[in-house]
Amino acid sequence: MRMVDVIEKKRDGKRLTSEELAFFVQGYTVDEIPDYQVAALLMAIVWRGMDDRETADLTLLMADSGDRLDLNDVAPFVVDKHSTGGVGDKVSLVVAPTVAACGLPVGKMSGRGLGFSGGTLDKLESIPGYRVDLSVAEFKAQLQRIGIVLTGQSANLAPADGKLYALRDVTGTVPSLPLIVSSIMSKKIAAGADAIVLDVKVGSGAFMKTLAEAQSLAVSMVNIGQQVGRQVVARISDMNQPLGYAVGNDLEVCEAIDTLHGFGPEDFREHCMVIAGEMLWLGGKATDVEMGIALARETVASGAAWAKFRQLIIAQEGDVRYVDDPTRFPDARFVETISAPGAGYLAHTQAAEIGMAVVDLGGGRARKADPIDHGVGILLHVKVGDYVATGAPIFTIYANDAGRRDLAAQRMLAALDFADEPPAPLPLFYERIV
Amino acid sequence: MRMVDVIEKKRDGKRLTSEELAFFVQGYTVDEIPDYQVAALLMAIVWRGMDDRETADLTLLMADSGDRLDLNDVAPFVVDKHSTGGVGDKVSLVVAPTVAACGLPVGKMSGRGLGFSGGTLDKLESIPGYRVDLSVAEFKAQLQRIGIVLTGQSANLAPADGKLYALRDVTGTVPSLPLIVSSIMSKKIAAGADAIVLDVKVGSGAFMKTLAEAQSLAVSMVNIGQQVGRQVVARISDMNQPLGYAVGNDLEVCEAIDTLHGFGPEDFREHCMVIAGEMLWLGGKATDVEMGIALARETVASGAAWAKFRQLIIAQEGDVRYVDDPTRFPDARFVETISAPGAGYLAHTQAAEIGMAVVDLGGGRARKADPIDHGVGILLHVKVGDYVATGAPIFTIYANDAGRRDLAAQRMLAALDFADEPPAPLPLFYERIV
Repeated sequence: MRMVDVIEKKRDGKRLTSEELAFFVQGYTVDEIPDYQVAALLMAIVWRGMDDRETADLTLLMADSGDRLDLNDVAPFVVDKHSTGGVGDKVSLVVAPTVAACGLPVGKMSGRGLGFSGGTLDKLESIPGYRVDLSVAEFKAQLQRIGIVLTGQSANLAPADGKLYALRDVTGTVPSLPLIVSSIMSKKIAAGADAIVLDVKVGSGAFMKTLAEAQSLAVSMVNIGQQVGRQVVARISDMNQPLGYAVGNDLEVCEAIDTLHGFGPEDFREHCMVIAGEMLWLGGKATDVEMGIALARETVASGAAWAKFRQLIIAQEGDVRYVDDPTRFPDARFVETISAPGAGYLAHTQAAEIGMAVVDLGGGRARKADPIDHGVGILLHVKVGDYVATGAPIFTIYANDAGRRDLAAQRMLAALDFADEPPAPLPLFYERIV
Repeated sequence: MRMVDVIEKKRDGKRLTSEELAFFVQGYTVDEIPDYQVAALLMAIVWRGMDDRETADLTLLMADSGDRLDLNDVAPFVVDKHSTGGVGDKVSLVVAPTVAACGLPVGKMSGRGLGFSGGTLDKLESIPGYRVDLSVAEFKAQLQRIGIVLTGQSANLAPADGKLYALRDVTGTVPSLPLIVSSIMSKKIAAGADAIVLDVKVGSGAFMKTLAEAQSLAVSMVNIGQQVGRQVVARISDMNQPLGYAVGNDLEVCEAIDTLHGFGPEDFREHCMVIAGEMLWLGGKATDVEMGIALARETVASGAAWAKFRQLIIAQEGDVRYVDDPTRFPDARFVETISAPGAGYLAHTQAAEIGMAVVDLGGGRARKADPIDHGVGILLHVKVGDYVATGAPIFTIYANDAGRRDLAAQRMLAALDFADEPPAPLPLFYERIV
């Protein structure tokens, strides 16, 4: 088989066989097929697409390109969650301990943030000492002992996906539904997931800007899940404003702690309960999702979710004094609250710009290798639909550099649109696809 | 400027600016832009196309990526010819001396064959001693002295095209009209052409299988020529059977010699006279193409074309005794004439397969680096429309290996289709586009 023939076949709009896909994925993983041929094939896939059978094949081939974590000896049924990325998305910090406290083990490998979109690992690293580099043995031992792990990718999981993703990033071949779906699914399968709750964000602070795009992704994920024998439930959720009020790493950890104590912003709390409810239902801890949501609420109200979070921090060597007393998180050097220049309703936010304001502050990454400052961020004081009087506080900036503070303030002011009339309220979720 | 943005713009179907094309071509020429990004862009161009302005920009950028041969000090107006490649295409061997003998200098850099398609350089190298590696200084001196040069590419001409072509070959990005047109034109412009006669082959032994494809290429070449200030005349010619009877390097040289003596196959002779006539018209040696064709005929009839060919061989150190007495070309070890298994009209040939039969014999290349045997080939005894009786000779194989001979004989027999009724006659030319 020759790679150029595979490229030409896809270029001409034909379906690739399982053998052709295997030839390409396996050859690329071991560096026998060069980047330039793969780049041409990827662009042909962006152009011509792939059907469900091809996408399922690609998913399993990438999942099998490296180690596959088998967690079933320590957790009989593994439910994972995946968010397509947004601003202020600290959902895993609340959902994982809530679900684990209900007796459904959660062993999760998370990623880092890039651009406007934050990452769970960066948030966890706000807690001094917290380890995100557990070995596979440590991962499995901790999952068995306390039923919860939140760490970085330790094993050599889906290396073909890693190589392909890096190549797509520099060749303009990211926006392809079958490539996006197979990338997400392959990592989850390699990490041992038996079922997946997919949180598809849509709106000004998400990668999907329209409901139609989000629906396509959700439907495709559910279909491919079926093809590869994994149950997928997708929730399409609003990302036209940040989730909660906090954007920035330690600020978000503090908001998650509040939420685990039964407080926290209503939108964020409700979002977490729904995602946790879906996981509990998929994991057999509830007979339907409503019961799962109710169970999640009880688990937070009883303090069990908080206790599980504390147990997690201790197990992964984080300094538990910080989460017990969040005032210990270091103060940013400059803390400035900005007031509304006029009166009106918050009508709309450019949520990705709010994420970029945190990048301005040094709390996010413009490029993958950039270091980040965990102590900076933005705390909003208004949600879309709120009325603000002239001079009322609209957001607070936590900065460690005056120049960066001013840059972020400018970007923030441009990202918030006020109007005289109240806007239509934003829903939390748009749709559920099973 | 970032290459990924250029790729994404073309991927999304937008036009690239001159600056973006320059960034890409110049960056690729000096290895600052990697193959994988260029491969993705090329596939996006195959998908989305390029308009005439983009194609003209790309043409000139590639022509300017290396040296540019300025021949105007030794030849006031340079007319070049280009064939899109076929089987038995020895046209340059007759046309160049014919045109040069009329006082229009022809300084031509030719290429080698690959696959079914032969190359002028390989044919010339059948003549012992013939040099195809003239330096630029030798090229210009010879052009000034005798008005004719037929050599390989000596200067560093259009290196960007060379790099791009090699990449297209292995990434399934060859079939794109703007890429084909800019590749042909950039080399001709870099080699100093003021005007170009384009011989677009169409049929079973050509790269273009349909008249529509050939027309598109011809029209695009003429348009892009206009955009870059070069006059282009295109002739769409038939390649549903080999041109002439001879396929294989020294066999084709002998057929060209016959033709320069005023004999040779009628189809081949006529084809050469038309192409020569177009060149003479473009070069101002005739007021219209009919007069150009008449002038070419006279030049062959008078012996002037033959004399110019002899002068060329001597100037480039070929052993002139071979062309003076073609029986000197070494006999192939096995010479076998195949007879018609039944009676009928030759209805159709799979001409590319006839080219591949010569590759079987070792007279062509399956891969670029393959060595070739100049003494092998096929001599047809029938043209499409001819009636053959059972047992009449249909072709002769010249082979140096019995196994290869048998392989080629099999392929040849499958490539010739006979019928009881005479087929519609094949034209020499389909169309002329100016």
